[in-house]
Amino acid sequence: MAFRTQCPVRFGDVDHAGIVYYPHFFIYFHEAFEDFFNENAQKYSELLNQRRLGFPTVHIEIDYSAPLRYGDALDIELSVPKLTARSAMFRYVGFRHSDGKQACEASITCVCVHLDHFSALPIPDDLRDLFAKFAE
Amino acid sequence: MAFRTQCPVRFGDVDHAGIVYYPHFFIYFHEAFEDFFNENAQKYSELLNQRRLGFPTVHIEIDYSAPLRYGDALDIELSVPKLTARSAMFRYVGFRHSDGKQACEASITCVCVHLDHFSALPIPDDLRDLFAKFAE
Amino acid sequence: MAFRTQCPVRFGDVDHAGIVYYPHFFIYFHEAFEDFFNENAQKYSELLNQRRLGFPTVHIEIDYSAPLRYGDALDIELSVPKLTARSAMFRYVGFRHSDGKQACEASITCVCVHLDHFSALPIPDDLRDLFAKFAE
Amino acid sequence: MAFRTQCPVRFGDVDHAGIVYYPHFFIYFHEAFEDFFNENAQKYSELLNQRRLGFPTVHIEIDYSAPLRYGDALDIELSVPKLTARSAMFRYVGFRHSDGKQACEASITCVCVHLDHFSALPIPDDLRDLFAKFAE
Repeated sequence: MAFRTQCPVRFGDVDHAGIVYYPHFFIYFHEAFEDFFNENAQKYSELLNQRRLGFPTVHIEIDYSAPLRYGDALDIELSVPKLTARSAMFRYVGFRHSDGKQACEASITCVCVHLDHFSALPIPDDLRDLFAKFAE
Repeated sequence: MAFRTQCPVRFGDVDHAGIVYYPHFFIYFHEAFEDFFNENAQKYSELLNQRRLGFPTVHIEIDYSAPLRYGDALDIELSVPKLTARSAMFRYVGFRHSDGKQACEASITCVCVHLDHFSALPIPDDLRDLFAKFAE
Repeated sequence: MAFRTQCPVRFGDVDHAGIVYYPHFFIYFHEAFEDFFNENAQKYSELLNQRRLGFPTVHIEIDYSAPLRYGDALDIELSVPKLTARSAMFRYVGFRHSDGKQACEASITCVCVHLDHFSALPIPDDLRDLFAKFAE
Repeated sequence: MAFRTQCPVRFGDVDHAGIVYYPHFFIYFHEAFEDFFNENAQKYSELLNQRRLGFPTVHIEIDYSAPLRYGDALDIELSVPKLTARSAMFRYVGFRHSDGKQACEASITCVCVHLDHFSALPIPDDLRDLFAKFAE
């Protein structure tokens, strides 16, 4: 099962070449990541502020296959193909809304840390169960 | 006396109309603001982290008079035309480096706060003296 | 009549003081501005790409009255209090979703230009009618 | 030989966890990329505007090994470990200025395109020679 969401391309998201500035895709992915928690578990802000858990990124691989322009949107499918005791790999496949063409595919590995000292923690059971539901 | 610095326009700073996205001017101004402290007093990061002082913005007026494009740079003159017990108005006049034409003029009023609770504080004497040196 | 929309505060929207970085409010306002066109007239991207019209900002006044934090959202009311032959003033009043407190009030004046040469144009009748509907 | 440059962490570059928001590293890398051209060949903006060449990103791999905070800076070493007829892989190794610890290592593969239609082009000889000088 994948979590699906959509990010519209905004007026300021493009670069001087007229396409979405490639770092901005990670901002779209993070919006999808936040909404994944917000809609399927608890608000991501509460996870950070009340439980003091965070998921800093330690590794990314991404392929860009088609440029994205202003006026279009990115349809994102988010899944969790790998899970270890202290880390999870999130996969984001992005499609151009206008023609359905795949624009990018990213694997983003995050570790679970305590935000007070950024030390690695085992992923709590409730989040492990959540991630497992979205294994591919 | 004005503090002078320069911000090059970067590849991702423009918008879909091909000019610097207007919110990005405030990012240039903040870089100038940080460098104003870094070069004339103490590092702005130390002011925040060690003295727990901050200068949140409470009011802005800005005129944009010429668009700025990728490949150009913004020459900034920063001065402090108004100073009260707990606030300071910073003036930023920005010029296009390529032709010297004025691109923008902004007045940004900030209050001095303690960052632990965002309560207003009198501006400390050393900063008051610093700001007074850059009165117009 | 005002156009109403909401912008959630995202994980990366804050600054080192832990509140929404003040330039980011203008990004929220521009999202509201785009959605104002998208939902009440034609897509803003079509206005730019097909009609080659744009609305660069020439003047801003803004008051910030309360900080906004991650986990909250900005409820925006957009209206058009002033209209001249070639310019319009857009007013954005922003409220913290969590407690309804006003966070900011901005007046952003834009001129109508042809995007090929950035020369001022009379606002076309269909857009003039649209703006007039949202006069306060 | 590597090209060396430094990006100071700015007040707005951090996220709600208090560290540089991970997409922002790609903005630092792009600044380094632009300066690599600006200082070793021709201005990158001229390459785009006059020669109509561009280097969109098609693949990234990155490891993040240490968080970066406000007040610090990222020391970047840029080299070009791989070169094919139509693409180049740029390597960015980033170190925290404060303690010299490696913060990240990224391989970013770009293709040479004509900006009018984004079709792949052979890398011109002068740029091929430039890149070869910075092979590791």
